[in-house]
Amino acid sequence: MTSADRNTGILALNAGSSSLKVALFPAEGDEPLVTGQADRIGPEGTLKLKDASGAELTVAGGDLTSHAGALAAIIATVKGAFPGLRMASVGHRVVHGGLDYAEPVTVTEAVLAKLAELEPFAPLHQPHNIAGIRAAMAAFPGVPQVACFDTAFHRGQPFVNDTFAIPHRYYEKGVRRYGFHGLSYDYVTSELERIAPHLMAGRVVVAHLGNGASMCAIYKGRSVASSMGFSALDGLPMGTRCGQIDPGVLLYMLDREHLDTAQIRQILYNESGLLGLSGGLSNDMRTLEEADSAQSHRAIDYFVFRVQRELGAMAAVMGGIDALVFCGGIGENSRVIRRRVCERLGWMGIEIDHGRNAANATVLSSEFSRTTVMIVTTREDLVIARAARAAAGINEGVAA
Amino acid sequence: MTSADRNTGILALNAGSSSLKVALFPAEGDEPLVTGQADRIGPEGTLKLKDASGAELTVAGGDLTSHAGALAAIIATVKGAFPGLRMASVGHRVVHGGLDYAEPVTVTEAVLAKLAELEPFAPLHQPHNIAGIRAAMAAFPGVPQVACFDTAFHRGQPFVNDTFAIPHRYYEKGVRRYGFHGLSYDYVTSELERIAPHLMAGRVVVAHLGNGASMCAIYKGRSVASSMGFSALDGLPMGTRCGQIDPGVLLYMLDREHLDTAQIRQILYNESGLLGLSGGLSNDMRTLEEADSAQSHRAIDYFVFRVQRELGAMAAVMGGIDALVFCGGIGENSRVIRRRVCERLGWMGIEIDHGRNAANATVLSSEFSRTTVMIVTTREDLVIARAARAAAGINEGVAA
Repeated sequence: MTSADRNTGILALNAGSSSLKVALFPAEGDEPLVTGQADRIGPEGTLKLKDASGAELTVAGGDLTSHAGALAAIIATVKGAFPGLRMASVGHRVVHGGLDYAEPVTVTEAVLAKLAELEPFAPLHQPHNIAGIRAAMAAFPGVPQVACFDTAFHRGQPFVNDTFAIPHRYYEKGVRRYGFHGLSYDYVTSELERIAPHLMAGRVVVAHLGNGASMCAIYKGRSVASSMGFSALDGLPMGTRCGQIDPGVLLYMLDREHLDTAQIRQILYNESGLLGLSGGLSNDMRTLEEADSAQSHRAIDYFVFRVQRELGAMAAVMGGIDALVFCGGIGENSRVIRRRVCERLGWMGIEIDHGRNAANATVLSSEFSRTTVMIVTTREDLVIARAARAAAGINEGVAA
Repeated sequence: MTSADRNTGILALNAGSSSLKVALFPAEGDEPLVTGQADRIGPEGTLKLKDASGAELTVAGGDLTSHAGALAAIIATVKGAFPGLRMASVGHRVVHGGLDYAEPVTVTEAVLAKLAELEPFAPLHQPHNIAGIRAAMAAFPGVPQVACFDTAFHRGQPFVNDTFAIPHRYYEKGVRRYGFHGLSYDYVTSELERIAPHLMAGRVVVAHLGNGASMCAIYKGRSVASSMGFSALDGLPMGTRCGQIDPGVLLYMLDREHLDTAQIRQILYNESGLLGLSGGLSNDMRTLEEADSAQSHRAIDYFVFRVQRELGAMAAVMGGIDALVFCGGIGENSRVIRRRVCERLGWMGIEIDHGRNAANATVLSSEFSRTTVMIVTTREDLVIARAARAAAGINEGVAA
């Protein structure tokens, strides 16, 4: 590695509604130099960053009331820790790429305008993704900003997965099942190709279970179905989002409760899912597991039920299942949810080893399980960094 | 049978948006004395009735511009064919029984008021069901009118099937998954108990595929899941109804297209499903099968895909599947749809015999199929007649 390489950084940003996740990567390699997160951006904002050894960096004072302020504080801290570092490119997670983007793209004003048009379809994320890009453009003038889309992985799905059964003109104007969580599925796919290529040649269901949650059917490495649809609302129940719901419920809210769109949006995006089912107890699976109450059982039982239901549906789409992969905060960490999801799925050839499950092992399935069950620790940051490197002309694996 | 019995009739009515199906039963037995249907009730209304031998009855002239007029014409025709007939009771299919009715009920004004409250949840059917009851009350004063609910069969479903992941107060006020097509599932269950009791003791998925379509998971004779939800919109795509859809699509129609609720209702109930997918070609599967065009393929492919998806989900809910039963107009008659649904389902133990399928045989599965695949010709009329007989105190099977 030349001294120039040593002084080259790649920043991967993931802006949420009130958070900003960051990972600073060197010119090559999968291990970040710095990782961290600004949380509760606003009056009570916090920022924690740590280096590759896990030691916390002393955060340069900053304004954590906005995404721009949080990014400025991150940059100042990083520059203090790595003087002379030149940022080669910045990669951004962007939740919605619409019809246009099936690959990462280097951001221009025209790109930003297109992304802004998609804001109503992912109101919890898209505006903050765009704000993150704008803040990085201001902080690193002239440095390529690369948008990496959660929808891109799914864009090649067959028509039957991509459409709704409404007048066909809607399909033509872009009302489709976009999928989402594509960066996570992209990573899991690349990791399976590395560690278990025989599975990747077959029929894999990936369950990305976190505060956002979805499932994806991956046949020979390509997304052929996903539980999330047009917006980030559909499919599995999430922390505060409803997942699958009868459209008649929205008509009821409109006609009988006289709610307006903003109120319905608020309910379905922010007051539903685990939080709604548990009667306001919590949107966090850890809290629910600890609570062990009638309220928490309602939420957990429903979550497990819906994951099982989608699992059957995804297997049916592919004509069977060779592997089930858990990822995301809940998928990687909740022994209870994994165990309960896999219960009574012997008919699908799924049988987990309870010891392996309790140990959060990589392979959870028993020796007699026809279907391989695994955990893959997902790395959206790495998928973003790889795209950002490519945009900066850094050829991975062959850097001197 | 006494002379009184011979002169006793039981009328079973099934009022749709522009149709009125009728079956006149004797005091005992499954074979109706008269069957028929008023269609296109309105300026171009038609009425056809035939007797048990299949001979067409000469229809007494009548006003076919309203449900009441159509019923009057039916009654006049029946009275002409069976002079001296005394109607013991009239049974009605009612699509929505809400939370209150898990069994048939003899109608009072108070019952009618409750049923009217449910109209917004099944606008294509409920108002006409109520109109049918009112017309029969006027035509047969003092005769018991019995409402038989399409929701009743599903009312015992477990919580996880009955709720949505929205704030729990909605569940408490009755926003639940009611299911529908319960009269059909009720009949299929009773018929399976008669002809294949070993299957009924296990895990059965019934696919009621018609102009309305849904699927039901029946575990040991009880409904444990269904694809239809709160309204008659959810689940499988139908002739003109959308089936499963991302709630974000409704928000899009509201926010971006500035549609009002009536317009959205019109699209989702009347312009979607097979009709919408086929770009307006047809809502009728027979027409689509004959068309063999890009438009018809879109609709058929999507329909098959969604049935397969739900089949996997239903099996997952029950921990496997012992039998798949087709019923409804498409399920009973479309060889193409049955064949295509069963394709690539070998992993679920489903293998049909193509000769049996082509012959519309009762048992379609091959000798090597682990899962039994059957057709049951559904008889909603008979389920209604049985309930109406019970309400009239006619004890089936022991009538003198």
